[in-house]
Amino acid sequence: MYKLEEIEGGVCASDGFYADGKSVGLKAKNGKDLAFIRSDSLCEIASVFTTNKMTAAPIRHFRNKGEFQTNFVLINAKNANAMTGSAGIEDIDDVLSNLNDFTNPVMSSTGVIGVRLPKKKIIDGLELFDFNAKEPRAAAEAIMTTDTFSKQKAFRVVLDDGGSFHIGAMAKGAGMINPAMATMLCFITTDAKVAKSEMQNILEESVKTTFNAASVDGDTSTNDTVMLLSNAKSDVYHKEAFAEALHTIMLFLAQEMVRDGEGATKLVTYQVSGAKNEKEAETVAKALSDSLLVKTALFGEDPNWGRIASTVGASGVDCDESTLSISFEEHCVYDKGNLLFDDAMEKKAASVMKRDRFTISCDLGVGTAKFTSYGCDLGHEYVKINADYRT
Amino acid sequence: MYKLEEIEGGVCASDGFYADGKSVGLKAKNGKDLAFIRSDSLCEIASVFTTNKMTAAPIRHFRNKGEFQTNFVLINAKNANAMTGSAGIEDIDDVLSNLNDFTNPVMSSTGVIGVRLPKKKIIDGLELFDFNAKEPRAAAEAIMTTDTFSKQKAFRVVLDDGGSFHIGAMAKGAGMINPAMATMLCFITTDAKVAKSEMQNILEESVKTTFNAASVDGDTSTNDTVMLLSNAKSDVYHKEAFAEALHTIMLFLAQEMVRDGEGATKLVTYQVSGAKNEKEAETVAKALSDSLLVKTALFGEDPNWGRIASTVGASGVDCDESTLSISFEEHCVYDKGNLLFDDAMEKKAASVMKRDRFTISCDLGVGTAKFTSYGCDLGHEYVKINADYRT
Repeated sequence: MYKLEEIEGGVCASDGFYADGKSVGLKAKNGKDLAFIRSDSLCEIASVFTTNKMTAAPIRHFRNKGEFQTNFVLINAKNANAMTGSAGIEDIDDVLSNLNDFTNPVMSSTGVIGVRLPKKKIIDGLELFDFNAKEPRAAAEAIMTTDTFSKQKAFRVVLDDGGSFHIGAMAKGAGMINPAMATMLCFITTDAKVAKSEMQNILEESVKTTFNAASVDGDTSTNDTVMLLSNAKSDVYHKEAFAEALHTIMLFLAQEMVRDGEGATKLVTYQVSGAKNEKEAETVAKALSDSLLVKTALFGEDPNWGRIASTVGASGVDCDESTLSISFEEHCVYDKGNLLFDDAMEKKAASVMKRDRFTISCDLGVGTAKFTSYGCDLGHEYVKINADYRT
Repeated sequence: MYKLEEIEGGVCASDGFYADGKSVGLKAKNGKDLAFIRSDSLCEIASVFTTNKMTAAPIRHFRNKGEFQTNFVLINAKNANAMTGSAGIEDIDDVLSNLNDFTNPVMSSTGVIGVRLPKKKIIDGLELFDFNAKEPRAAAEAIMTTDTFSKQKAFRVVLDDGGSFHIGAMAKGAGMINPAMATMLCFITTDAKVAKSEMQNILEESVKTTFNAASVDGDTSTNDTVMLLSNAKSDVYHKEAFAEALHTIMLFLAQEMVRDGEGATKLVTYQVSGAKNEKEAETVAKALSDSLLVKTALFGEDPNWGRIASTVGASGVDCDESTLSISFEEHCVYDKGNLLFDDAMEKKAASVMKRDRFTISCDLGVGTAKFTSYGCDLGHEYVKINADYRT
């Protein structure tokens, strides 16, 4: 067996990793806007990128290199380097040519689409860094755009035989509503001695039920990136422990993104069960977390279960009003044709909706498959932020 | 050849049709809430209903009857009679049993989901009607829910040989954003001598490029209904003329719904061209009109073309940044890799976005297929209306 001990340190929690964030003048108010992560030995890389066809230059640049190891990642905010064609790739080469002390340095970007990378500011800004710094919070702050708080998590994983390794991460973004195409980025470091292919498999598996369960597919950014760097320094590995620690970190960060959704005041878990298959369970769970009408009802703290039923029906999965059940936490408001939503029940459901976090459950009643998604409400702040984002 | 003459009269514009709307106490402020349409001879019916699996009782009731002709349609607002199971069907039977003077009367409903039909008020309210009234505007007003204006349109279709027939319609709903599951309803009457099967085909064809091009699939209501009643009284028919008049009416009403979208201030036409096939053109056009980020940018009058590019990319169709072009009216801001969005261009695009109606064009550059959709912006009023709808 093993245990997970939560520790401080974010991406620097793993042995041999360094990070920092500085202001190089990309953000208007001189906030931190450039970050690095460095390892003092070469890392294997596992990664999952956006499915958006307008793939941003940093992702195309990464892919063009084929198989490689690295010891350095540079991340800028405020400019996505997307829709910038071959010039966007050249801009990255120009920046990275100033990092010749490192091996195969990688670049990642988030911000406005369709504007050339301000590469002079970035290159000049590299001078500000001490690459031996361990300032994980500064790094996490530097990659924020519309985020209102930085997002980090780390574990020491202790095995029964006394061996241990670390996993640490930082992320940015406001997942669920994928604000302003401002991108979801997540960087994870580990000193576990994990094989590259296994690391990639575990990462992909974990993405499905964490970040991908907390993101609107329709608004998938051009830059979404989850990157896991492993330098194997602990010389220790345990598959289940590694997978559990990674999943726990990613789920926490995915939920943090939703909780930090632009203007969001509530984190809602949609537990869909009784579906014909997992695909249909996922379709319903995502339809619920994406529905404008459900999101505005959440904002109004209105237990409008009819919108939930209608959203389930509109998603086209196998289910009808004689099989569906809907609950707000433990309170079942509709059960396979029985209208249970009387005044007393409305009061109970309404009190659930006043909470910061709660669960809405839908049993489709036609099978045994499940999927859980994470969503937030949509209120005036969201409109305000997104109507004014670029200016 | 033929010509279309726009006339007054809505659903009463066709020979032999009567309609009116009254207040029977379903709406809070004693607004009109019950409407009828009657024909003095039997009508063939063509219809298109919602694809939502939680199909409302009136639609199930209609379908249960199989093939039939009718001379009477009753429509109530404020209650959708949805998620009401077999009781919802029995409630309709109870209401319609008070209309024995008519043949196969049909019922249609719009409003809140999951509450039993207030049938006593409706039955009592039938007393208020003079079934020989021709008050099409009152009928159009009685079916409104969150609509801010009633929606009607009618044509006299005059053929070269002097023969003529009529088509008239009323609709409710705020299409694009399908507010509060408040349903899109459209009733069309005609005295053209059109065969039932042809009428159904033409209606289905027209729905694709009108109401279905102006509606968020993800929020398809439980009650959406488009119904065309034909009593053949003119004894005249001309296929192209009939199809054109019907399409013109439906497109006008679909655009009116979008223009009346809750809180909407702009009607935007998305012209997608250069797609691999029509399905992909439609996917992109609907992704654009559905995107929260595009809708909030419209509200902010911000020509944020990067969100448009990213939405196209996220839709998963065949297209990349080297083939895509984007224009605001005649101003091309991005052309197959060329960033044309300088300060002068931004000024031009921003001035387009200040208009009430304008067109955004995306050429995907990979084929010849096209699709046009209709959308609106999303602002604070939408949030306000939908956060408070039920209460």
